[in-house]
Amino acid sequence: MIKCHNRHNHHQRNTKQYSYKIVIMEAEIKILDKSVRKTSNGFSVKGYGAKGASIDNNILEQIDVERANPKADEVLIEVLYCGVCHSDVHQVNNDWKNTRYPCVPGHEVIGKIVETGASVSKFKVGQIVGVGCMVDSCQTCNPCKNGDEHFCAGEHGPTMTYNGYFRDPGSDYNTFGGFSTHIVSNEAFLLTIPEKLELSSAAPLLCAGVTTYSPMKQWGVKAGDNVAIVGIGGLGHVAIQIAKALGAKVTAITSHESKKEEAKAFGADDVLLSTDEDAMTKNALRYDYILITIPVPFDINDYINLLTYRGSLVTVGLLGEYEKPTNNMNVAIFDRTLGGSFIGGISQTQEMLDFCAEHDIAPEVEMININQVNEAFDKVKNEEVRFRYVIDMSK
Amino acid sequence: MIKCHNRHNHHQRNTKQYSYKIVIMEAEIKILDKSVRKTSNGFSVKGYGAKGASIDNNILEQIDVERANPKADEVLIEVLYCGVCHSDVHQVNNDWKNTRYPCVPGHEVIGKIVETGASVSKFKVGQIVGVGCMVDSCQTCNPCKNGDEHFCAGEHGPTMTYNGYFRDPGSDYNTFGGFSTHIVSNEAFLLTIPEKLELSSAAPLLCAGVTTYSPMKQWGVKAGDNVAIVGIGGLGHVAIQIAKALGAKVTAITSHESKKEEAKAFGADDVLLSTDEDAMTKNALRYDYILITIPVPFDINDYINLLTYRGSLVTVGLLGEYEKPTNNMNVAIFDRTLGGSFIGGISQTQEMLDFCAEHDIAPEVEMININQVNEAFDKVKNEEVRFRYVIDMSK
Repeated sequence: MIKCHNRHNHHQRNTKQYSYKIVIMEAEIKILDKSVRKTSNGFSVKGYGAKGASIDNNILEQIDVERANPKADEVLIEVLYCGVCHSDVHQVNNDWKNTRYPCVPGHEVIGKIVETGASVSKFKVGQIVGVGCMVDSCQTCNPCKNGDEHFCAGEHGPTMTYNGYFRDPGSDYNTFGGFSTHIVSNEAFLLTIPEKLELSSAAPLLCAGVTTYSPMKQWGVKAGDNVAIVGIGGLGHVAIQIAKALGAKVTAITSHESKKEEAKAFGADDVLLSTDEDAMTKNALRYDYILITIPVPFDINDYINLLTYRGSLVTVGLLGEYEKPTNNMNVAIFDRTLGGSFIGGISQTQEMLDFCAEHDIAPEVEMININQVNEAFDKVKNEEVRFRYVIDMSK
Repeated sequence: MIKCHNRHNHHQRNTKQYSYKIVIMEAEIKILDKSVRKTSNGFSVKGYGAKGASIDNNILEQIDVERANPKADEVLIEVLYCGVCHSDVHQVNNDWKNTRYPCVPGHEVIGKIVETGASVSKFKVGQIVGVGCMVDSCQTCNPCKNGDEHFCAGEHGPTMTYNGYFRDPGSDYNTFGGFSTHIVSNEAFLLTIPEKLELSSAAPLLCAGVTTYSPMKQWGVKAGDNVAIVGIGGLGHVAIQIAKALGAKVTAITSHESKKEEAKAFGADDVLLSTDEDAMTKNALRYDYILITIPVPFDINDYINLLTYRGSLVTVGLLGEYEKPTNNMNVAIFDRTLGGSFIGGISQTQEMLDFCAEHDIAPEVEMININQVNEAFDKVKNEEVRFRYVIDMSK
């Protein structure tokens, strides 16, 4: 059982105690080769990705990643830490039917700038920065100008950190993420990591943090609100901390009896077991706001009646179909809303990092090496991760 | 084809031209007997309702309705007009599996006060008033005190105009609606009909009006917004007018080619055919707000992509399951919300009536006699009504 008091110390302990049985692979790689080889179009670095779509090929292995030279407004970053997000697993497995292979995931990146383009003005070589789910966007459309780069109305939308379009004509189709020794990002997409945050445990904030912070801000969660967080995993355990810091009364809802105490250690005032029908019925109409982080299909109807009138429920984990049709009777009868939310803009991501630093919010992480990532993926899929893996790229 | 210019005159024409083939019933009743017979508990009046749950019994026929004497804060109303709402059909047919028989529907009532309880202070005998979907509530809970009587947190919630609980212990279980010569309502639930509104065509506002006005106010529809109204029937044709009066740019979305011109006559700036896949694709991300009034199961996924980022879609017609599970990918990717809405509070209903009077908004009605109501129900079910039937109880 992880105790969450003094969590930063536990990160260290967890790292040392880490002793996974490594999945057998063709070539077991201990440390990624950090050499950068110049090519005609840019340079080749080492990444860790899935070569193809078949089940066998979904195992991540070391591959060469071609990266273009940083343009004037871009920087080259040496990756120090990269979080393992459930989205990485979905993308590698082609769960969303849009994966381009080879697929090098990773969008919770902390790294050091090693090269800057000619016009980069806000960042310098040697500086530690974060890269989240996007590395570029058109930066000229209305959403971009309003700080909503994730809704970029440019031709292909924002350039996602992996599996994304590059916006320049003729450039490569597929972006590669942070499971790599190096990554390139537009400087406008770099995050400053507040000094108070520990670098390794800050990495997951770049996706899990903003994914849960953004909808709570958007839907106006405030002091005194009754908030429920459903699914106490990588996103949920951060969401509990953020909701508490916003002053809400927080209930964690989980299907795992084993997570009850942990949820309280993260700050939950109350815990409900979603499998306890009596408890679910008794808490009808209780919550102003419910954030659901379950990353697999589930029945949303199980949660609607927990909302008070004009209450809102937002699902951030599931990027696909719910298990069953929504019954609008229960939505309409109390003017409820069911929303979804997707990461956040860059300025809001920075705001979230600053908020987490101010309120001592940190993901609970287990540090792994790059060659443990396949087993980590299995544990994410099987809900055995507690709560977030972070790859230490120096190991 | 109904022309909507100078609609009030057309009401008259429609009334005169009305020549339905009357459904054969055991006893064909031309005019409801308006006599009031005193009983030990109150009095007996004539209503028009369904006696039981079987298909045969869902035909409405004349039945005796027992009404309690008005309490101190209640009034007895002689019904002049009553709208025919799709909910009436659902309730009579037990579509929501909660119908208590006998079922006397009708919750769009315009009538004249004929008796007032001892403490009634705001209304007088002889006054014309409206009664909508509720006739009472606890009036002491927080929602009631906030003007949200429809969310009454009292033991049984609000007392709905029909098929409702009475709140007093020991009193009758089932309320009877406006398909009746008389109805009793708490004075706090009476609406004042602005002089500018025609009485007959004002009746449907008491449900259709507030059902569409309330969510547009709640979700903040404002001048310049791009609004789509889906389903151009009893609710939709009122919603177009309200959205226009709020200053929105309004698109009507219908599956009926035949309703395109009518939708424009009600004020729609644009019309989309929901069956035109190309048009639906081309209008992706266009709307700030979509109000869906389709009263039967449909696939909500067809409409989600029409919403701009942070856009909201609210379904008011369907009080049951959607046809298919919602795909949260399309909801989350642009921070969209899907809501439901249910009528509105009494003060908001009054605000809506005043708003409609100010902006010359009126439902398009066809006047019928009480003995034409079974055929009217069939036409509502078969989507042949255009756009609202109102029973003239004097005929």
